[in-house]
Amino acid sequence: MAIQPPKGTRDFLPKEMAVRQYVFDISREVFERFGFEPLETPAIESWELLSKKGGGGEDIKKEVYYFRDKGNREIGLRFDLTAPLGRVAANNPQIPKPFKRYQIGPVWRYDNPQAGRYREFWQADADIVGSEKMDCEAECLVAAATILEALGFRDFAIRLNNRKILNGIIEFLQIPKEKAPDVFRALDKLEKFGADEVTKEILKAGVKQPKARKLLEMIKARGSPSTILERERKKLDTYSTAKQGMDELEQIVKKCQAYGIARKLIIDLSLVRGLDYYTGPIFEISVRTKNDIGSIAGGGRYDNLIENYGGRWTPAVGISLGIERICEIMDSEKMFKHLETKTRVFVAVADEGLMENAMFVAQKLRAAGINTQIELMGRPLKKQLEYVDRAKIPFVVIVGDMELRKGKYTVREMAKRKQGLFTLEKIIKVLGEKK
Amino acid sequence: MAIQPPKGTRDFLPKEMAVRQYVFDISREVFERFGFEPLETPAIESWELLSKKGGGGEDIKKEVYYFRDKGNREIGLRFDLTAPLGRVAANNPQIPKPFKRYQIGPVWRYDNPQAGRYREFWQADADIVGSEKMDCEAECLVAAATILEALGFRDFAIRLNNRKILNGIIEFLQIPKEKAPDVFRALDKLEKFGADEVTKEILKAGVKQPKARKLLEMIKARGSPSTILERERKKLDTYSTAKQGMDELEQIVKKCQAYGIARKLIIDLSLVRGLDYYTGPIFEISVRTKNDIGSIAGGGRYDNLIENYGGRWTPAVGISLGIERICEIMDSEKMFKHLETKTRVFVAVADEGLMENAMFVAQKLRAAGINTQIELMGRPLKKQLEYVDRAKIPFVVIVGDMELRKGKYTVREMAKRKQGLFTLEKIIKVLGEKK
Repeated sequence: MAIQPPKGTRDFLPKEMAVRQYVFDISREVFERFGFEPLETPAIESWELLSKKGGGGEDIKKEVYYFRDKGNREIGLRFDLTAPLGRVAANNPQIPKPFKRYQIGPVWRYDNPQAGRYREFWQADADIVGSEKMDCEAECLVAAATILEALGFRDFAIRLNNRKILNGIIEFLQIPKEKAPDVFRALDKLEKFGADEVTKEILKAGVKQPKARKLLEMIKARGSPSTILERERKKLDTYSTAKQGMDELEQIVKKCQAYGIARKLIIDLSLVRGLDYYTGPIFEISVRTKNDIGSIAGGGRYDNLIENYGGRWTPAVGISLGIERICEIMDSEKMFKHLETKTRVFVAVADEGLMENAMFVAQKLRAAGINTQIELMGRPLKKQLEYVDRAKIPFVVIVGDMELRKGKYTVREMAKRKQGLFTLEKIIKVLGEKK
Repeated sequence: MAIQPPKGTRDFLPKEMAVRQYVFDISREVFERFGFEPLETPAIESWELLSKKGGGGEDIKKEVYYFRDKGNREIGLRFDLTAPLGRVAANNPQIPKPFKRYQIGPVWRYDNPQAGRYREFWQADADIVGSEKMDCEAECLVAAATILEALGFRDFAIRLNNRKILNGIIEFLQIPKEKAPDVFRALDKLEKFGADEVTKEILKAGVKQPKARKLLEMIKARGSPSTILERERKKLDTYSTAKQGMDELEQIVKKCQAYGIARKLIIDLSLVRGLDYYTGPIFEISVRTKNDIGSIAGGGRYDNLIENYGGRWTPAVGISLGIERICEIMDSEKMFKHLETKTRVFVAVADEGLMENAMFVAQKLRAAGINTQIELMGRPLKKQLEYVDRAKIPFVVIVGDMELRKGKYTVREMAKRKQGLFTLEKIIKVLGEKK
C-alpha cells in the first residue's frame, strides 16, 4: 500500500482546491477592502507562547503538537492565529495603531478526528489591535458578514455575548473570581455535551450545586438584542462589570444597525468561547443548513493578551472564519459550481513532428492569459482527445498538416462535440472572452 | 522582553507581505496559464515518507523536524513539496496523466540559520507526473522563466545537467554504482565548500584518490549546449547511460529553442542537486546580482519516487522556485516599488457624533471595491490625520458638519497636501480609477 498522510490530515486535490481558493480569494479581497493588511507568522511557535497562562487555556494546551527541536528548544505548532498576532504586536510596538491585520493559514490541534474535524485546519482571521472602541467589534462582524454574503451564505446568525456579563453573573452568584476560567471552559461544552456533563465539570471546579444550577439557569437568556438586553439589565445592572458588558453590547448593536447587519444579531448569554484570552465581547456566526446548525466563524476581544506576551498593554479584538466548515457547507449545499479543471484549452497535435507548431500555438494562447495545456506524452491524437475528455478540459485546438496549410486550426468544444476551423487570432478572442 | 518567534523563523509584517503576495500571485497565475492545477498537502508527514530511502537522502533526514504525535506516531514537517506530491501520486493512480500540479507553501529544514537561510521557507513548485518526454522538462523551465520575467528578472541563467551523464562518468571511472548517492551528495557541496573538502568526502565514500581527482576533473565541463554536448559525447558516448543523458539534454535544448529560452541554457556537468530522488535531467536557475550569483530555482526528473512511495512506477519531473531568495533579491535590487499599505483611503470624522455618516461613506467606498479604513479609536481629527500620515495611506475623506450640509466631502491627497470638496460619486470614481 502507498504511504498515507498522517492521521487527521488530508490532501486537497485540484477539484477541492478550486472551492478553497475561491474562499481564500474572496476573504482576502474583502479583508483588504476593509483596510486589513496581510501578515504571516511561522507555523512553529515556542512552547512558552503556546502554553502561556491566559492564552489558549488548559484544554488547548493538551491539544498542541508539542516537540523539541534539535537544539532541545521546546516548540509546537500554532493552535490559532490570534496567539501569533499577540506575539507580533508585543514585539512591534512601533506599528501605528489601530493595527489591522488579516492572516489566512493552517493551524494544528491534536483533536480526536471525527466527521468534519481535522488536526490540520485553516482559518482566515481579521483582527484590530490598539483600540477599545466597539467600532472594532462591529467592523470585524461586518467584514465577516460581507465575506459570507459574497460566498453566497444567506441564512446566518451572529450570536453575541460579553465575558463581562458572564463575569457579572459569577459576581452575582458570589462564585470566587479565580474559578471563572474553569467555569467558562465547562460552559463552553454545553452544546456539545449537555447540561449534566457541564454541571459535573462546574462542581469539579469547586462550585456548589445550587450555584451551578442557578448559573445554568441564568445563561439561558437568548433572543433579539432589544428584548434580552433590557430584561437582563434589570437583574444585573447593579453589578458594574455586567453593566459595562451590556453597554458594550448595546454599542455593537448600534454600530451594526448603521452597517445594516443588526437583524442578524442574537444575544445569547450561553455563548462562552473556549479560549482563556477573551476579556470582553465574544461572538460566533452560525449557519443553518439542511440538517444542522454549524458554527463557521467566531471571535472576540482579548485586551490583556499582548501584555501577557510581554508587550505593553494593548486592547485587541478579532474574528476567525473556519475555512473547513465553510468549504464543507458550500460543497454539501452545492453553493459552488465545481470546475473540474482550471485549464481552458488543450493544444493537441495530429503528428509528433508538429510539436513545435503546437508549442507556438500554446505560447500565443498563454501570452493572451488563457490557461493552456499542451500534449506532453507523445500520444496519438485519439489518446490525446480521450485525456481531454477525462480531464474535463472544455476546448481542444488541433494542430495538423491540413490546419497548417490553411493557416487555421480546428477548435473543438468538447461538451457540445462541435468543431470548426479558425485563425489563431479568432481562437484567442473567443476563448479569452468566454472565461 | 516580549516572547520571540522560534530561532530560524520570522514574521512578515504587511510591508514585506506586499512583495511576497506579489510573487505568489504571479507564480500562481503563470502556473495556471501553463495548465498546472492547484494541490495542497499537510505540513505534517509521516516519518516513513520523510525518511524513505531514495527520497530526500541522508543529509535531508538530519534536517527534518522530527517528533512523535500524542498517539506515538513518528511524524515530521515536510522538507520539500516534491515528496508530498510523490505520495499523492502514489495514492491516487486514478488522476488522468499527465497530472500537472503546482503548490505554493512553506517547508521546514533544521539548517544552521545564517544570512538569508531560514528554517521555515516557502517554495513554489510545478511538477508534471506521468510522462517521460523531455517536453515536460522544457515546460517546467519555460513556466519558471515566464514567472521570473514577469517579476522583472532579466539576467538569469539555466544550468542543465543529467544524473544519467553523472552515472555514465561513474561507470567510466569504474566506481561501484552503489556509491553514487554518497558521491553525488559530496559533489553537491562543491560550490559551498570547495574541492578539498569534497575530495575528502568522496574518499570517505570509499573512492580512491586518483578516481576522485579524475571525477572532479571531468565534471568541470561547462558552457553552451552546442560546444559542451559535442565535446563530451566524444568521451562518453560509448557509455549507454551517459549517451542517453546527452540525448535527453539535446531534446530539452531543442524544445527550449522553440519556446525562445534556449539562449539562457548552460550545460554544467558539476550540477548535481543534493536530493537522492533525481534520476534524469536536473536544472538550476541562478541570477546575477550586484554582489553575488544566487540560485533561485531548481528541479529535475525523479522517475522512481512514486513507485518508491508504494505507487505504480510513474515518471515525473518538476521545478521549485525559492521564494525567500527571490523576495530577497527583488528587495535588495529594488525591483519592487514598495507599497507601505494596501489601504487606499481613510474616512476621518470631524466629530464622533458623525461616526454613522462616516460608516455610510466607508460602506459606499468598500462596495465600490476601494480599500478603505475608518476611524476606530474615537480620536480627534488631528490625531486621525497623524495616523494616516504614519500609516502612509494616500487619501483621506473627511466627514464634518460643513461637508454634510453641502452634500460633499473633503478629500485630501496626503503626499501633495492638496484638498478639495467632492460628491461621494466623484470620490468613488476618482479613487477607484487611480488604483
